[in-house]
Amino acid sequence: MRVVTDPAAMRALSRRARDRGERIAFVPTMGALHDGHLALMRRAGTRHDRLAVSVFVNPLQFGPREDYRRYPRDARRDAALCRSVGCDWLFLPRARSLYPAGFSTTVSPGPLGARWEGAVRPGHFAGVLTVVLKLLHVVEPDTLILGQKDAQQAALVRAMMRDLDLPGRLDVAPIVREPDGVAMSSRNAYLDAGQRARAAGLPRALRAAAAAARSGERVAARLTAAARGTLRRESRPDGVDYLALVDPKTFAPVRRLDRRSLLIAAIRIGRTRLIDNRFLNPGGRA
Amino acid sequence: MRVVTDPAAMRALSRRARDRGERIAFVPTMGALHDGHLALMRRAGTRHDRLAVSVFVNPLQFGPREDYRRYPRDARRDAALCRSVGCDWLFLPRARSLYPAGFSTTVSPGPLGARWEGAVRPGHFAGVLTVVLKLLHVVEPDTLILGQKDAQQAALVRAMMRDLDLPGRLDVAPIVREPDGVAMSSRNAYLDAGQRARAAGLPRALRAAAAAARSGERVAARLTAAARGTLRRESRPDGVDYLALVDPKTFAPVRRLDRRSLLIAAIRIGRTRLIDNRFLNPGGRA
Repeated sequence: MRVVTDPAAMRALSRRARDRGERIAFVPTMGALHDGHLALMRRAGTRHDRLAVSVFVNPLQFGPREDYRRYPRDARRDAALCRSVGCDWLFLPRARSLYPAGFSTTVSPGPLGARWEGAVRPGHFAGVLTVVLKLLHVVEPDTLILGQKDAQQAALVRAMMRDLDLPGRLDVAPIVREPDGVAMSSRNAYLDAGQRARAAGLPRALRAAAAAARSGERVAARLTAAARGTLRRESRPDGVDYLALVDPKTFAPVRRLDRRSLLIAAIRIGRTRLIDNRFLNPGGRA
Repeated sequence: MRVVTDPAAMRALSRRARDRGERIAFVPTMGALHDGHLALMRRAGTRHDRLAVSVFVNPLQFGPREDYRRYPRDARRDAALCRSVGCDWLFLPRARSLYPAGFSTTVSPGPLGARWEGAVRPGHFAGVLTVVLKLLHVVEPDTLILGQKDAQQAALVRAMMRDLDLPGRLDVAPIVREPDGVAMSSRNAYLDAGQRARAAGLPRALRAAAAAARSGERVAARLTAAARGTLRRESRPDGVDYLALVDPKTFAPVRRLDRRSLLIAAIRIGRTRLIDNRFLNPGGRA
């Protein structure tokens, strides 16, 4: 595994591989790697010849009162995990090389960027799209691999790739969960034991809505009420930023579960924000 | 010369050429081609193996009360001119293929995008950067060639290429002028004979400032006053949107001509906006 910090060196590696006819997969991360990230990396699988992974805690996507400084960092462990799943190139850019003095051009998401996560975290998705575009320009992969855990992020990156005519394809991998159902997240490390137990109420709340849908419930308000009831009882959240049934592409709210829709939620437990989502299908269809 | 309307077909042509080791130059235009455009195309010269030219009147960079509908269009003449200077690929995308329903992701210029042209034409540079980025993603050139006539646009594209880590280099070609000094522009076609004579006052005004600089004047206000005097007498403009001495990279106003600076101007003659610029050097240096 090659560790690269210089963007020009990273691009040179990728271009030489492509000139040899190799296919390149790319997994961008903020480090603090867990099995969810490793599942993204394994997904590159046999359809690609090279796997690039970036680890970069992107300051541009954190708000001024968010957890940029305390976000978990463990470069040595991250490198070992990347090596263990066959990563070829570990790209570790420095903040000052991606954002030098005078940096000013950014990507603006459309209206979808201001909903849900974007409403709670103003500027977040502009920061995400900007760094993803920069990384795509450096790595130039055939396939970008993202996780369904950050569903709205994946939808916005998909829209960006279409709107800006980016080459390459996007592959979105399913959520990887802990045994108790909690979606894997680097931010789970913030939770103490009691908070961790409460966190498990979030996926159970989403499952409660799925159970109601299987029983034939199609009214979105009743499905979210089922989730909310479980959430209140089992998570006792310190805040619910949103809990909504939405169209999986536009993230516009849907009033009835007439086709496959996405139930999305963001809650706070203590100072920690947790997000999760689950596809719901009408009337018991898988 | 191949004429291509489909973005995927354009990219395939470019990628096949690059796979053969060929170097690609790209000149984006809005058509209504004149000798200024042809100079950009000739500049691809012997350092490149392939020349791509796009003709696309980009709706995103026109304000609601601007001249998008009446902007001059002559596809047959444009194609003949491109062929005459050795263009290999003429890319003619359709607006609905670059901006399909649901299009929403755009590029935001930094503060430079809100100055001068950007102050007079809100949203203009976001539209320019967005379409240039899209075209770069489709054509994937080694060299992008732009004209110094649109100096602020060239500076913003340079900033975008640096900020977003775009591969490839930018080559900015000098202004091409008519015999009377008027910078070549597709919008010159809007001028009647009397207006055309007045337009020649604009480059003469910039030359008057250059003459004052050669005589040792370094105070920006006096240099622009010299230009303004000539402009009033010879152009009798219906409006001066701006006339300013600026730093050639940041376009921040400079108060003294202590190093090479750029004198920029935008005036209106009738309903037509004309822009021009000229480098000034302190104390008679070339």
